[in-house]
Amino acid sequence: MGSGFSFTLNATDGRARTGVISTPRGEIRTPAFMPVGTAGTVKAMLPESVRATGADILLGNTYHLMLRPGAERLARLGGLHRFMNWERPILTDSGGFQVMSLSTLRKLTEEGVTFSSHVDGSKHHLTPERSMEIQRLLGSDIVMAFDECPALPAAEDTVAKSMRLSMRWAARSREAFGDRPGHALFGIMQGGVTRELREESAEALKGIGFEGYAVGGLAVGEGQEAMFGVLDYAPGLLPEDKPRYLMGVGKPDDIVGAVKRGIDMMDCVLPTRSGRTGQAWTRRGQVNLRNARHAEDPRPLDEACTCPACRSYSRAYLHHVVRAGEMIAGMLLTWHNLHYFQEIMAGMREAIAGGRFEAWESGFHASRAEGDVEPL
Amino acid sequence: MGSGFSFTLNATDGRARTGVISTPRGEIRTPAFMPVGTAGTVKAMLPESVRATGADILLGNTYHLMLRPGAERLARLGGLHRFMNWERPILTDSGGFQVMSLSTLRKLTEEGVTFSSHVDGSKHHLTPERSMEIQRLLGSDIVMAFDECPALPAAEDTVAKSMRLSMRWAARSREAFGDRPGHALFGIMQGGVTRELREESAEALKGIGFEGYAVGGLAVGEGQEAMFGVLDYAPGLLPEDKPRYLMGVGKPDDIVGAVKRGIDMMDCVLPTRSGRTGQAWTRRGQVNLRNARHAEDPRPLDEACTCPACRSYSRAYLHHVVRAGEMIAGMLLTWHNLHYFQEIMAGMREAIAGGRFEAWESGFHASRAEGDVEPL
Repeated sequence: MGSGFSFTLNATDGRARTGVISTPRGEIRTPAFMPVGTAGTVKAMLPESVRATGADILLGNTYHLMLRPGAERLARLGGLHRFMNWERPILTDSGGFQVMSLSTLRKLTEEGVTFSSHVDGSKHHLTPERSMEIQRLLGSDIVMAFDECPALPAAEDTVAKSMRLSMRWAARSREAFGDRPGHALFGIMQGGVTRELREESAEALKGIGFEGYAVGGLAVGEGQEAMFGVLDYAPGLLPEDKPRYLMGVGKPDDIVGAVKRGIDMMDCVLPTRSGRTGQAWTRRGQVNLRNARHAEDPRPLDEACTCPACRSYSRAYLHHVVRAGEMIAGMLLTWHNLHYFQEIMAGMREAIAGGRFEAWESGFHASRAEGDVEPL
Repeated sequence: MGSGFSFTLNATDGRARTGVISTPRGEIRTPAFMPVGTAGTVKAMLPESVRATGADILLGNTYHLMLRPGAERLARLGGLHRFMNWERPILTDSGGFQVMSLSTLRKLTEEGVTFSSHVDGSKHHLTPERSMEIQRLLGSDIVMAFDECPALPAAEDTVAKSMRLSMRWAARSREAFGDRPGHALFGIMQGGVTRELREESAEALKGIGFEGYAVGGLAVGEGQEAMFGVLDYAPGLLPEDKPRYLMGVGKPDDIVGAVKRGIDMMDCVLPTRSGRTGQAWTRRGQVNLRNARHAEDPRPLDEACTCPACRSYSRAYLHHVVRAGEMIAGMLLTWHNLHYFQEIMAGMREAIAGGRFEAWESGFHASRAEGDVEPL
């Protein structure tokens, strides 16, 4: 179980941690931000460019890939890594979350969930066993247990019932995953914003035993304050010697706040999705390149950034290509956003290793407080 | 007039020619294919990738750029080269052709043309003098004379009247262009498919004198046979010591047939536009990646091609991303198509230099006759 897969904690600073996850496909430096490659591509990027931003690992979406091109087809083509030309580690989600948010005609039972594809309306069945099988067919390095996750706010007994179902599914996922050296299975803690439920969930998962643990059921509408409220205690409920993954987070200040509270891994579509709508994330905050104030601004998006968008183009150019609907707008802004997110991660890793996370965090917030400066 | 800009003919083979256009921004190896960067970007490509395909020069569209971001704004931002991060030569068209094909509410007089923008409906006036001014503001290396071009088929007297107007505009363009060392002005021959009109147009242009000459008014609906019919004599009407540019051409076999008939430069949106709709051009002909026969084909698009799409991805992957509407489909297929078009040009340059153009052309047609092979 997990031979060839290991986690080494190198340093802690307060509750913040830095370390390395080792896999047969390469190392993942933590805290790690995983760009999302939903359907076999990190949208608007070539994989070598994603790597150039500093990403060690990508996330793939089981739900999308099982529908198109299909898990068995992907296996016949040599797996997801070869298919999408990314030979480093890939984490796949279980499909559960996206079935709930994207599919139609869902029916949930103890056994699993039946749903219709958002692509072609075809009928599908997903269970812990099938999710494990699909993620194996994809060749995923880090497999997520199949879970169910209610949107927040939700009644406490709804959250409790859902969490307990997810824990039974977690046990079935562990059983179905089997022994796969070099591959890891992560359990997912649920329980909403209720501490007792989070504790019950953590105990259940530790009883089963996983190579890593995710904090699930956050970033689903509860707001940053409530999320940090849970993160103030939830990572501490999980084993210290295993990676802790916060799913679907987030904005730069969410990420920094999560790492401060002991999270090791995160993923989010934010940098890629924003990049395709003319939104850039920078040291000084969010910049909307569609805004007319950039139309004749010869300065780069961020003069201190070394990404291709900032090195070779003006804000005026980025504004122009965003307004003209040109693909290069999404290509350059996605690259910039991923570069910036990875720069935050690298900054935090270095700060934690040097025992100066607090100073780094102050600088992060001070730079954002300056805001985006006005055009010349 | 044209100091710093020169054309050296290195070899001929039959009527096919190879040489080098020298400009202060770099050399252009001929025969040259110019990718189209309509609105300050070769769609779906970064400029360094365009260069990597072997392109020495890009084409920019005056009509699009004058409307957005605007010529005066582009000049204030340091010109088109800096704006779009392409420091090598740029040829700009005069705007005339696109006014006719894209704008609305056109009014044509001896003076010029008035029209409404397809972007925002705003009113604009374009004359030979304003076209020269705009192309100067953009910083274009090769400026095209302002002309008018009727779609074919058209009545001969319509074509004649239009050609004579274009010749008067060519003289005004020459006058307005002035003395700009290192920059070139090209005249455009018109006259449809009527030899006498082509001869009259060529004489008029030679009387004015240009650094290069375009064959205009082709690839506008007349078909390959009629186009080759004109190209059988038209290049021979132009000065031998100046570059000859066939505008808006074309498919690979159009390009080869044009070079065979003495053309030195071409441009076309075909490789870029095709790339964004799942169409690939290969040695063996056109391949529609949307077709279901590619869904499980592990082979590259072309096993002999060294572009990123062919080096690192299967047909199955390209099919998947085309079907899923992912941006990487347009990025990879555009790259492949531009790479293939440049490979054709490089092959022809080498063959002409070696005096074996005919053998090269036979190989080109034989390979296409094989067709795209069936999946495994």
